[in-house]
Amino acid sequence: MTDFNWTKSQFHLPDGITYLDGNSLGPLPKNVTSRIEATVENEWGEMLVSAWNRAGWMVQPNRVGNRIGRLVGAEPDTVSVGDTLSIKIFQALAAALQLNPDRKVVLSDTGNFPSDLYIAEGLLKLLDREYRLVTVEPDEVESAIGPDTAALMLTHVDYRTGRMHDMARLTETARKAGSVTVWDLAHSAGAVPVDLAGCGADFAAGCTYKYLNAGPGAPAFIYARPGLHDRMQPALSGWLGHAAPFAFDPDYRAAEGIARMRIGTPPVIQMTALETALDVWDQVDMADLRARSVELTEYFIRAVKERCPDLDLFSPRDAGLRGSQVSFRFEHGYEMMQALIARGVVGDFRAPDVMRFGIAPLYIDEDNLARAVEVMAKALAEKAWQKAEYQVRADVT
Amino acid sequence: MTDFNWTKSQFHLPDGITYLDGNSLGPLPKNVTSRIEATVENEWGEMLVSAWNRAGWMVQPNRVGNRIGRLVGAEPDTVSVGDTLSIKIFQALAAALQLNPDRKVVLSDTGNFPSDLYIAEGLLKLLDREYRLVTVEPDEVESAIGPDTAALMLTHVDYRTGRMHDMARLTETARKAGSVTVWDLAHSAGAVPVDLAGCGADFAAGCTYKYLNAGPGAPAFIYARPGLHDRMQPALSGWLGHAAPFAFDPDYRAAEGIARMRIGTPPVIQMTALETALDVWDQVDMADLRARSVELTEYFIRAVKERCPDLDLFSPRDAGLRGSQVSFRFEHGYEMMQALIARGVVGDFRAPDVMRFGIAPLYIDEDNLARAVEVMAKALAEKAWQKAEYQVRADVT
Repeated sequence: MTDFNWTKSQFHLPDGITYLDGNSLGPLPKNVTSRIEATVENEWGEMLVSAWNRAGWMVQPNRVGNRIGRLVGAEPDTVSVGDTLSIKIFQALAAALQLNPDRKVVLSDTGNFPSDLYIAEGLLKLLDREYRLVTVEPDEVESAIGPDTAALMLTHVDYRTGRMHDMARLTETARKAGSVTVWDLAHSAGAVPVDLAGCGADFAAGCTYKYLNAGPGAPAFIYARPGLHDRMQPALSGWLGHAAPFAFDPDYRAAEGIARMRIGTPPVIQMTALETALDVWDQVDMADLRARSVELTEYFIRAVKERCPDLDLFSPRDAGLRGSQVSFRFEHGYEMMQALIARGVVGDFRAPDVMRFGIAPLYIDEDNLARAVEVMAKALAEKAWQKAEYQVRADVT
Repeated sequence: MTDFNWTKSQFHLPDGITYLDGNSLGPLPKNVTSRIEATVENEWGEMLVSAWNRAGWMVQPNRVGNRIGRLVGAEPDTVSVGDTLSIKIFQALAAALQLNPDRKVVLSDTGNFPSDLYIAEGLLKLLDREYRLVTVEPDEVESAIGPDTAALMLTHVDYRTGRMHDMARLTETARKAGSVTVWDLAHSAGAVPVDLAGCGADFAAGCTYKYLNAGPGAPAFIYARPGLHDRMQPALSGWLGHAAPFAFDPDYRAAEGIARMRIGTPPVIQMTALETALDVWDQVDMADLRARSVELTEYFIRAVKERCPDLDLFSPRDAGLRGSQVSFRFEHGYEMMQALIARGVVGDFRAPDVMRFGIAPLYIDEDNLARAVEVMAKALAEKAWQKAEYQVRADVT
């Protein structure tokens, strides 16, 4: 049984802040500073270049990949860590299209994170002119999968609404139609149980700075189904994905397994923060996490409905269709979110009028949510959004 | 006048080690640990997601880019920092080919770093089948530039020999022939003066963990000439290169200027290490650095010739053709380098028989080099390479 009081004790949470934005940037695990200090001083400082072997820096991306793999239902040695999510999406989609060369359509939906769509646009421009990116509404995806669909590229949990796709069902439909699947797990890893192996997903990618709490700019991860490892050709064929990087062979020869999705030198200091953040996760059962997440999001939705009836629920009401965030639409959403932040309740805003709250059971409990709703109700009653100081626009994921 | 005693005092150098491998991984600047601690605790820990604006994380890649720009002769706002060197080479080469669509040859040389060639191979596979990568010997590059050369992609200073190309001359030849230039500055930035603007170079990229001392896995940088900013189309079109990332526009629209070469979320903790490492560089004049580098490499070459005549100089004897490293060939080079490392003299080995020594004036002086040569001479006299313990192979860039 996961002890969520213990998990909460493992984070530094600033005094006076109710933090409901861990779906943008997770809070600081308490051990990160000392672990980074050890990496910098004892490894970089003392071992210098020999630390690549002596401190295990070179093998860290695969070791950390396996620890993330457990959280997303991946088989051993199917996940590699590095780069950013946009890069990992590029790699996954390029490999998907290479594996399905006779089809020319990339199918996605309007709920996908824009960067995934931008990356797809950029990739398709490099390829021949017959390729097309088709985006449909989320509930039209299943019926849009067809004999021309080369790759189905979706974000599992919508970054605005928290709406969650049925990964097993869509993956199965795509597989039967001969399409390769690419799943973005940005709002899934550490938020909801994911069963990549059980679903038969082909590729997946995700980031680690949201629910996994690995810090600003933490590296991303990529998954590929074992059956594809020998056939997938890396489009970003960097030297650390080479079978023998230190042979300095003039020709590229892909490494065995998921390691061929490595590109360049891994960000060792960020990797240390990530590996430290995963220590908490080693004590978490994903079924417990999901049960607690549903309990908390249900509590929050009910309380907001009761105390803040001006906010319209934008997330699915059915917990089974929802990730671990709750969003509301409100005409003055931007200004209102600024007012809440000024009062110590931190969520975020997504255009045009969405107030978004991440509910991470590792460090959020009913007391936090009750306080947040009290502050929201009071700010609404005061029409706090009218203040000029909340009109200035500047925000970040 | 640069004070190299002061610069040396700014680094942590382990007791008993003579470190001649800063061309692989530079040593730890003393202020890095405390600066990282401040970023982690005061910014990530206390400001949480608001630090993207309040702590300036979002604008850091361009600010740091300008500080690197000064060291490589770049115009203001022409350098952006992020990702890895392989990714930045991919971006630069893809943009170069897009700008020169009627030509199909990428010209490089056998002295290029293998990853650059691998990345080119991978990119050309994505593009249409007419593209070809042609590699010639370094001294044949100039005569190989022709009317079919779309892009000339070279590493300025050879990672094995330290041989330095004449960037001004080759860039001019390429320009006259209608070819776009892509320069890899991995062994140039912080090693030798570079004048990108003066040479009229089109694109360049480099890493920051070698002579710039920014730490293991530190982010890379990319340069594009101002005249290309509005015309270059990013192949890796991630959301942070979008004109308005937080508008969450479904369609990609490239940002103005070099910012369009940004891709995903920047590695904030590694960026802090990099920015700290640049503080030392702010006190360095590149002409002074070059003069000191030539003085030290000349000293080292003469001393090795006198005391270790079995080693054959592999670097150019003419200082004007050489970067800031000195390499020697020796039949038992691998084993000999292990023996030297065991005796506290750290260089590195590159296949098949190259012993490589990086001479970084920021923290290396004649006393260090004299000690290194003494240790080398003694190890050679003892035939130290014959010991079984030095036969086991495992090394890293």
